[in-house]
Amino acid sequence: MSGQKTRQWKLSNPPQENAVLEGENTTFALETTTLPSPGPEQLLVKTLFLSNDPAQRGWIQKDVDAERLYTKPVVKGEVMRAHGIAEVVESNVDSLKKGQLVMGSLGWTEYAVVGAKEVRPIQADESAGIRPTHFIGALGGPGLTAYYGLIDVVRATASDTVVVSGAAGATGSMVVQIAKHIVGCKRIIGIAGGDKKCRWVESLGADVCIDYKAPSWKEDLKKATEGFVEVYFDNVGGEILDLMLTRIKRHGRIAACGAVATYNSRGDFGVKNWTEIVTNRIEVRGFIVFDAIDAGKAGPYIQELIKKVKEGKIQIGPETETVVPTKFEDVPKTWTLLFNGGNTGKLVTQIKA
Amino acid sequence: MSGQKTRQWKLSNPPQENAVLEGENTTFALETTTLPSPGPEQLLVKTLFLSNDPAQRGWIQKDVDAERLYTKPVVKGEVMRAHGIAEVVESNVDSLKKGQLVMGSLGWTEYAVVGAKEVRPIQADESAGIRPTHFIGALGGPGLTAYYGLIDVVRATASDTVVVSGAAGATGSMVVQIAKHIVGCKRIIGIAGGDKKCRWVESLGADVCIDYKAPSWKEDLKKATEGFVEVYFDNVGGEILDLMLTRIKRHGRIAACGAVATYNSRGDFGVKNWTEIVTNRIEVRGFIVFDAIDAGKAGPYIQELIKKVKEGKIQIGPETETVVPTKFEDVPKTWTLLFNGGNTGKLVTQIKA
Repeated sequence: MSGQKTRQWKLSNPPQENAVLEGENTTFALETTTLPSPGPEQLLVKTLFLSNDPAQRGWIQKDVDAERLYTKPVVKGEVMRAHGIAEVVESNVDSLKKGQLVMGSLGWTEYAVVGAKEVRPIQADESAGIRPTHFIGALGGPGLTAYYGLIDVVRATASDTVVVSGAAGATGSMVVQIAKHIVGCKRIIGIAGGDKKCRWVESLGADVCIDYKAPSWKEDLKKATEGFVEVYFDNVGGEILDLMLTRIKRHGRIAACGAVATYNSRGDFGVKNWTEIVTNRIEVRGFIVFDAIDAGKAGPYIQELIKKVKEGKIQIGPETETVVPTKFEDVPKTWTLLFNGGNTGKLVTQIKA
Repeated sequence: MSGQKTRQWKLSNPPQENAVLEGENTTFALETTTLPSPGPEQLLVKTLFLSNDPAQRGWIQKDVDAERLYTKPVVKGEVMRAHGIAEVVESNVDSLKKGQLVMGSLGWTEYAVVGAKEVRPIQADESAGIRPTHFIGALGGPGLTAYYGLIDVVRATASDTVVVSGAAGATGSMVVQIAKHIVGCKRIIGIAGGDKKCRWVESLGADVCIDYKAPSWKEDLKKATEGFVEVYFDNVGGEILDLMLTRIKRHGRIAACGAVATYNSRGDFGVKNWTEIVTNRIEVRGFIVFDAIDAGKAGPYIQELIKKVKEGKIQIGPETETVVPTKFEDVPKTWTLLFNGGNTGKLVTQIKA
């Protein structure tokens, strides 16, 4: 059989600030190529869904110091890297049949030829409300990040008050639910953008959610954290982190999970309240999802989450993901919604036929 | 006996930036007062030496949030708080005779009336080179801070490369020596201001010391930390900390001990490289010397240091303290040397008769 034609988005100009999608010097370029036929132990797959993750922004930063990145950067001219879900179109692998759904690091491509070991089969369970896309969201990287961060990194207990920023996001919404329904934390305070998101975060189990888009957000957050808090799960960095440094109790803990607020303006924001770490003896621990995998926790934690979903304790209803049907030529545009607060829960790109 | 007359320096204007020593609105005011006679279980003591500590700057900050400070702030009108060494002049305490040297939180005062429990007797050992002032320096708070920070906070081991800032200071010079002669760290990199200080830090056991006053300091530090380092003991904060965030190995550790570089300009400096904490999974732990005391480590660690001094493994020679003979009216002036890098080792004010 002759090779499959496919369109692909490649990194053409590593950005310094926001990704540029229009005009000259756009960040990504759309190209068409013909794939080789799959060889032994290889598959031809068709992309159905793409995962959108804040971390992707780090991989394409201009002048990124590759030695300091936790994974290889995406090099100029390479297909933009992305996790995704695909359907097997042609298989030279005994265990994977045509039509089977698989997940893996596919990239922004319509079709791909991949090795058997580069993908994992997906077993959805529609009767329990578990859809394929959950495995790149609530039951995938973000869910695992939330679980590992809360349990292993900040070691949250039932006597802790926990503050979670980005609480309406893919990871944050799971942190709130795990804090409430698995750990049973004393009090849970979410931070999210907009009234609608905040009410949703409260419905997940937060005692209160602070709208950081409200002009009074600083006062609101101070009031909500009166008496100070033991644990802060930081998904955003920037100004919210800086204020939170002044709201952590003596010997409190911070899980530093992300800094999406500064991904597009690296070096512009400076954390001014570092001294609080000293005077109040705060522990800060950075982590990423790979640490959970290295620690052998991925399997057990995801199984535990699936169990809690089936017991009705963790919600993975429609609001836990924002699935955006997208023409392939608009893949970068959907991705940028991440940085504009455009999603509730996991932001998923669904490739339109 | 009638009360003893004494001069005292009181906090008159809590400063926002540098302490103001001249003109109107000076930070401190000199006053004369008459002390009550010592009552039962009290002593009249005469101040011989005053300890100068970066932490004192935090206690007098204008608009300080008392709830966030690890100790009571010094209130406007109060005698400036300071650790010191005094001689017993009059005693109503059986165990403390006239002429005995004691240490405690005496304040900037020539004489003081104190309770027996507020001071501890000092046992110097001149034959072993251990002078009274060592108990506010190498064998006091700074030595304890160094020991506890290195062993308990960042858990340095023989396989770690350790970077120490403020390496010619009271705490830093002990960190270097403990890393070298007690822990036996693989490699020790000091950071200090000026060539003379750097050569001294190297004589204490650092493999190399970077002069942060040299125009090439950033390049020098990058070169010295090629391949990255496991441990950073931060005594200064600011720009040096920010650069060091980019030089820590994956899963490396930072002991956040102080931020003297920013004490006088709180809120002006922002740490830009916070994202490194996430991507390289850095652990940051703030601490202060009280944590060592709370953990019951003060006695054993100081005894261990004294033992190492007697074995000749830890140097407490003249360079480990800068003793500045000072007229009482110049006490604030000597204190400000702390913030100008004016001292090598512990900065001690010796009150001139």
